[in-house]
Amino acid sequence: MKQRIINIFNNIEKKIDNVIIKNSSDPFIDNNFFYATGLDKGLFEGSAAILYPEGKIDLIVSELEAETANKAKAELKVYKNISEYNEIFSNTIKSKSNIGLNFNCLSHLDYCKFKEKFPNANFIDVSEALSKTRSVKDNIEIDLIRKSCNIVDRVIKEIPSFIKDGMYEYELAAEIDYLMQKNGADKPAFDTISSFGKNSAEPHYTHGNKKIVNGDFVLCDFGAHFKKYNSDITRTFVFGKASEKQKNMYKTVLEAQRIGFETAKSKVKANLVHNKVDQYINNSEFKGCFTHTTGHSIGLDVHDPGIGFSNIYETGLKENMTLTIEPGVYIPGFGGVRIEDDVLIKKDRIEILTKSPRDLIEI
Amino acid sequence: MKQRIINIFNNIEKKIDNVIIKNSSDPFIDNNFFYATGLDKGLFEGSAAILYPEGKIDLIVSELEAETANKAKAELKVYKNISEYNEIFSNTIKSKSNIGLNFNCLSHLDYCKFKEKFPNANFIDVSEALSKTRSVKDNIEIDLIRKSCNIVDRVIKEIPSFIKDGMYEYELAAEIDYLMQKNGADKPAFDTISSFGKNSAEPHYTHGNKKIVNGDFVLCDFGAHFKKYNSDITRTFVFGKASEKQKNMYKTVLEAQRIGFETAKSKVKANLVHNKVDQYINNSEFKGCFTHTTGHSIGLDVHDPGIGFSNIYETGLKENMTLTIEPGVYIPGFGGVRIEDDVLIKKDRIEILTKSPRDLIEI
Repeated sequence: MKQRIINIFNNIEKKIDNVIIKNSSDPFIDNNFFYATGLDKGLFEGSAAILYPEGKIDLIVSELEAETANKAKAELKVYKNISEYNEIFSNTIKSKSNIGLNFNCLSHLDYCKFKEKFPNANFIDVSEALSKTRSVKDNIEIDLIRKSCNIVDRVIKEIPSFIKDGMYEYELAAEIDYLMQKNGADKPAFDTISSFGKNSAEPHYTHGNKKIVNGDFVLCDFGAHFKKYNSDITRTFVFGKASEKQKNMYKTVLEAQRIGFETAKSKVKANLVHNKVDQYINNSEFKGCFTHTTGHSIGLDVHDPGIGFSNIYETGLKENMTLTIEPGVYIPGFGGVRIEDDVLIKKDRIEILTKSPRDLIEI
Repeated sequence: MKQRIINIFNNIEKKIDNVIIKNSSDPFIDNNFFYATGLDKGLFEGSAAILYPEGKIDLIVSELEAETANKAKAELKVYKNISEYNEIFSNTIKSKSNIGLNFNCLSHLDYCKFKEKFPNANFIDVSEALSKTRSVKDNIEIDLIRKSCNIVDRVIKEIPSFIKDGMYEYELAAEIDYLMQKNGADKPAFDTISSFGKNSAEPHYTHGNKKIVNGDFVLCDFGAHFKKYNSDITRTFVFGKASEKQKNMYKTVLEAQRIGFETAKSKVKANLVHNKVDQYINNSEFKGCFTHTTGHSIGLDVHDPGIGFSNIYETGLKENMTLTIEPGVYIPGFGGVRIEDDVLIKKDRIEILTKSPRDLIEI
C-alpha cells in the first residue's frame, strides 16, 4: 500500500509531516483507514493509522484487533488501555508537526482530543487529497470491485425465477440479500431496494409491505460488499406483460444509459456525461422525469468521494476510475425505471464491469 | 417526542438556546436525529434537527426526504440546494446563541461550517446529556425493542434445524440474516457472527470459510434492526455430542449470566453487575477466560451510549434502561461459549426481553 500513501502525499499541496486517519466507534469508521492499510477485514473502532510521506504506516490498534491488523504491512503499536493509547501517540508524533486530518470523517470530539494532545501542532484538512487519490483505483481495487460485480451478476440472473404472484417487497429484498451472501458477499453494500408498482417511482424508497400484482414494475437496486469493496446494480423488470408506456419508459432509459456508456472515457469531463444523458431524457416524452444525477464513484464507499456524473464535477475523467451509470425515468403514482451498471474508465472507452443483460424482462 | 426533547434540555447543565443534531453523509448519521424526531424510516443524509427547550423541533431536510419527514411532529423546512439550506439556517438560528452540538457524532468539517455560519455563537458539547437521556427508554422505545427481540427469538428457534454437516460459517450467517428479514427485520443490526469450533474463541470474529465438523461449538450472535431499534442475542450450540469440557464451559457461562440477571435491578451500580459476573467466572476453572465486559446498553444503537455493565459505569441502574447481559468463556485454540440476552431494568428485578431457551442444545 506504499504507493497509495505516496499518492496521498503527492495530492496534498502543503508540506505535511504526517496524515492521521482516526476511526471513532461504529458506524463512524473512516474507509481511508482500509485504503491506506489494505486491510480487508475487521472493524477497527478507535484505531488510528499514521501515514508518512515516504509511504510508511504506523498502526495503532487495541489488543482485540492486533491479530487482524498483523496482515497490514505496517508497524503495529498495540494498546491495552487509554493511557497506553495516549503514550503511543505522544511517542510517535512530534509536538511541532504539520498534521493532516480528514475533517470530513473525523468526529469533532476526536479533533478536540488531538488539539489537546498536540497543542503546538498545525492541523490541516486533507479530505480533498484523500478523495482525489481514491477516485483513481489501483489493480488490487479494480480486482475486488470486479469480484463484487460478479456476485451481483450471479444474483440478477436468478431474480426472475423467484418472483411469485403475491410476493411482498420485503420478501424479495430478503431473497436478494440471501443470494448475495450465498454467493460470497460479506453483506449487502446498502439497504436493498425492491420496489413494486408505483413505489418504483420513488428513487429513495427501499422496500415495504406492497404485494406484487400483475403489470407492476419490479425495481431491484442492490450491491455486494466484498472485502470492503462494493458493487451497485439496478434492473427493472415487469411482472406480467409490459404496457406500451412501460416499454417506452424502458427504451428511453436504456438508450440514455447507452449514451452514457458511449460518452464516458478518459479526459471527457464528468459533467458532460450527465448532461448528455439528462438531455436525451429531457428531449423525449419523459421530460423532467429524470430527477437525480447520472452516477457516482464506487469503491470502498458505495458513494465514493472525488468524482461523479453530475454538474458539480467539471473535471476530466481519468483511467481506472470506477463509477455507476444509472439513468432513470420516474412518474409519480405510476412507477419508475432505472438501469444501473458499474463501469471502469479506460483510455478511449469504458469497460462495463457488471455483465448482466439489460433488455426488458417480462416475468 | 416533545418529552424526549424536554428531557434532553433538562440533562444539559448550561443554559442553551438550541440543540442542533446534524447528519453528514452515510454512514455518518447521528441516531439522535431519529431519537428527537421519532422517525422510523429514511436515511436523512445532510438533514438537521433544531431542538428548542420547550420541546419544539425544526426539521431541515432535502426535497427527496420531505415526504418521509412529514411523519414527524416538527416544523418542516425543505431545501432544494445548498444556498436554500444556508438561508434556512440563517433565518432559524439567532446569531448570538448558545448552541448545543453532539461533538461525538458531528464531523469536524460540519463543526467548522457551523463556526463559519455563526461566528458569534457559543458551541457547547451536549453529547453526555444526549447519552444520559437516551439511556432510559420510554414506552414507544421499549415496545420497538420488544418487537426486535421477538424477531430474533423466532430465528433462534429455527437455527438447529438448518445446521447440516459440511455447512460453512458464511452459509449459516446468510440463513440467519434471511430468516430475520423474512420475520420482519429491516436488516441485521450488525454483521452476524456465526463461528464454528476454535473460531468461537475470538469474540470479534464474524464468519468465514470454516466448515462445520462434529464436536464444534456453533456460536451465533446476531440482532434484528426494526424501525431503527435493535436487539442482540447470542446462543452457543454444540454440533454433535458435547464433551465434558464443553459442558463445563457452558454451565459456567449460564450460571454467570444467571448471577447477572439476579444482580441487575434499579439503583444497583452497573459495574457491580459486571464485577459479580466476572468474579464468578474467575473463581471457576475458567479463570481469565472472560475477556470482555458483561453488557452494553441497546436501543437505536446496538452499543447505545450512556450506560453499560463494565467498570467504567459506577452509576446506578434506572428503571426502563435496556441492556444486554452476555458473559463468555473463551479458550484460544479450543473454542468459546457466550450466552447473551436483552433485559429491561425494573424496580426490583429485570425482565428478560429475549425469551429463547438457554439450555445447551446438541445438534
